[in-house]
Amino acid sequence: MSGRDALLVSVGRSRAEAEPWLASFAARLPHLDVAALGDPVAPERVRYAAAWRHPHGALADLPGLRAVFSLGAGVDHLLADPALPPGVPVARVVDPDLTARMSEWVLLHVLGHHRQARRYRRQQAESRWADDPYQPAARAVRVGVMGLGVLGIDAATKLKVVGFDVAGWSRSPRDVPGIACFAGAEGLDAFLRRTDILVVLLPLTPDTAGMLDAALFAKLARDGRLGGPVLINAGRGGLQREADILRGLDDGTLAAATLDVFEREPLERESPLWRHPAVTVTPHNAALSDPEAVADLIAGQIVALERGEPLRHAVDRARNY
Amino acid sequence: MSGRDALLVSVGRSRAEAEPWLASFAARLPHLDVAALGDPVAPERVRYAAAWRHPHGALADLPGLRAVFSLGAGVDHLLADPALPPGVPVARVVDPDLTARMSEWVLLHVLGHHRQARRYRRQQAESRWADDPYQPAARAVRVGVMGLGVLGIDAATKLKVVGFDVAGWSRSPRDVPGIACFAGAEGLDAFLRRTDILVVLLPLTPDTAGMLDAALFAKLARDGRLGGPVLINAGRGGLQREADILRGLDDGTLAAATLDVFEREPLERESPLWRHPAVTVTPHNAALSDPEAVADLIAGQIVALERGEPLRHAVDRARNY
Repeated sequence: MSGRDALLVSVGRSRAEAEPWLASFAARLPHLDVAALGDPVAPERVRYAAAWRHPHGALADLPGLRAVFSLGAGVDHLLADPALPPGVPVARVVDPDLTARMSEWVLLHVLGHHRQARRYRRQQAESRWADDPYQPAARAVRVGVMGLGVLGIDAATKLKVVGFDVAGWSRSPRDVPGIACFAGAEGLDAFLRRTDILVVLLPLTPDTAGMLDAALFAKLARDGRLGGPVLINAGRGGLQREADILRGLDDGTLAAATLDVFEREPLERESPLWRHPAVTVTPHNAALSDPEAVADLIAGQIVALERGEPLRHAVDRARNY
Repeated sequence: MSGRDALLVSVGRSRAEAEPWLASFAARLPHLDVAALGDPVAPERVRYAAAWRHPHGALADLPGLRAVFSLGAGVDHLLADPALPPGVPVARVVDPDLTARMSEWVLLHVLGHHRQARRYRRQQAESRWADDPYQPAARAVRVGVMGLGVLGIDAATKLKVVGFDVAGWSRSPRDVPGIACFAGAEGLDAFLRRTDILVVLLPLTPDTAGMLDAALFAKLARDGRLGGPVLINAGRGGLQREADILRGLDDGTLAAATLDVFEREPLERESPLWRHPAVTVTPHNAALSDPEAVADLIAGQIVALERGEPLRHAVDRARNY
């Protein structure tokens, strides 16, 4: 290998899984060597790293490292590594396609609860044509989006276009046109109290870990049109207490849940979530990254950095997102 | 009963079913007598009729009739009555809530096909966590909306907001911002050729009856990202040939269908549509009317007419919609 600068890529469980990513990056960054974890590359040549759930420690001892890029929107997998060099900037990917995909998934599942899709599937399975009681309009259903980053704002805005009564909650105050915005610990209870369908798109940080618990579920609106509050989580599994979700569904604190993320992934076969009649499980695919699009975006971030521009979409490591 | 003008209401199969409608109209039009079909009211006093699937002939021989109102968006049930007085204007209801509900249903089912909801439900039933092949973005999926009236335009516009590549087709040329518009018999083949998901919101007229048949299905795009074209019909059951839908699903001309309307309703228990693995059935409830909202709108139409204004949302009887 040459003495050129290198991009270290850590993704998947094998070099074969990483191969398409390596090829995508190599095609876009011909001035760099693109190496997979384990490839023979001198540590001091590694200037950039792009990673998705890398083995902890794998990004330590790289004295020339200038920036670490997440291969997705979340950076919790990077920041959870205690050996991540503290002085190195970390950046996320902001992929408009990934944002659009997340909103597709959110709309599909919010609408499914709102329009009682499960009930009509059951009736179909019984060949039963049944008129239903009067269906509330979307404007009579209050959706609350937790997390008003790029994903949360896009989802909230599209839910509003469909007609829902949408509010949002974020750690620091936000202003989103058409959306009732709540912020901080002091705004949380009022936000939950007016929420029939809770859509969670929060980052996983020490502050948010385990936040979706029995105490939070108990604060959701109980006077809504859907027979009880609904939880939809496509943020991170670490945000939720699955035992509390199951207990809430069984004691009526929650009417239903749709989960794309889990405390441990893949969700274990023995988890009761798979078979609970009020739970919808999707396999952490609400918003998959398109490798080509992500490689484009990260290559663009690297080229901009090399032109002397500031790092785009840098993470505030003190805030963890 | 007095000699006052009367509004004749025909809805449901019994006076009890009509009762909420009668009360809603009476509260809003205190200067009129509000009568159900069969009530003792002198025919010459009936100035207005509001009907949903009335018995044919019931609106004949009403010499003072000034206008007939459909209790929903469709007017085919009125125009199919050969005894409907030819000179009397017919008006539809344009209810923003009904429009929004229809778009909710369309979005739910388009997104369900796009995001393979059926596949993930099956995997969940098997407690199976499976990564899937790369998911196309909505912009790579071509949705075609047939019928660009109020309902079609609203649905097309919202599908576009979600990110789909949307086209529309209508009998006469239309211009809808952001939507590729096709028109007339000469535009139909080009429209179908670029359609992966066909959403039908057409009125039922002699021209459109039975239009959704094997010949039309064969013209849909076969190079799309969903494994074959998808049919979604929330217009009228009379538009479709159910035998052709079943044959198309079985020979691969169609990949899937979601139907809210049927040749005969309620759908007979023995229909194979109920149990076909690629068919979703909903019981003609894509967009139910809210009686209070519809009564408001029709009362407003009557009051405007009495003020001397032209009839709002009048139907072109020569065009049947």
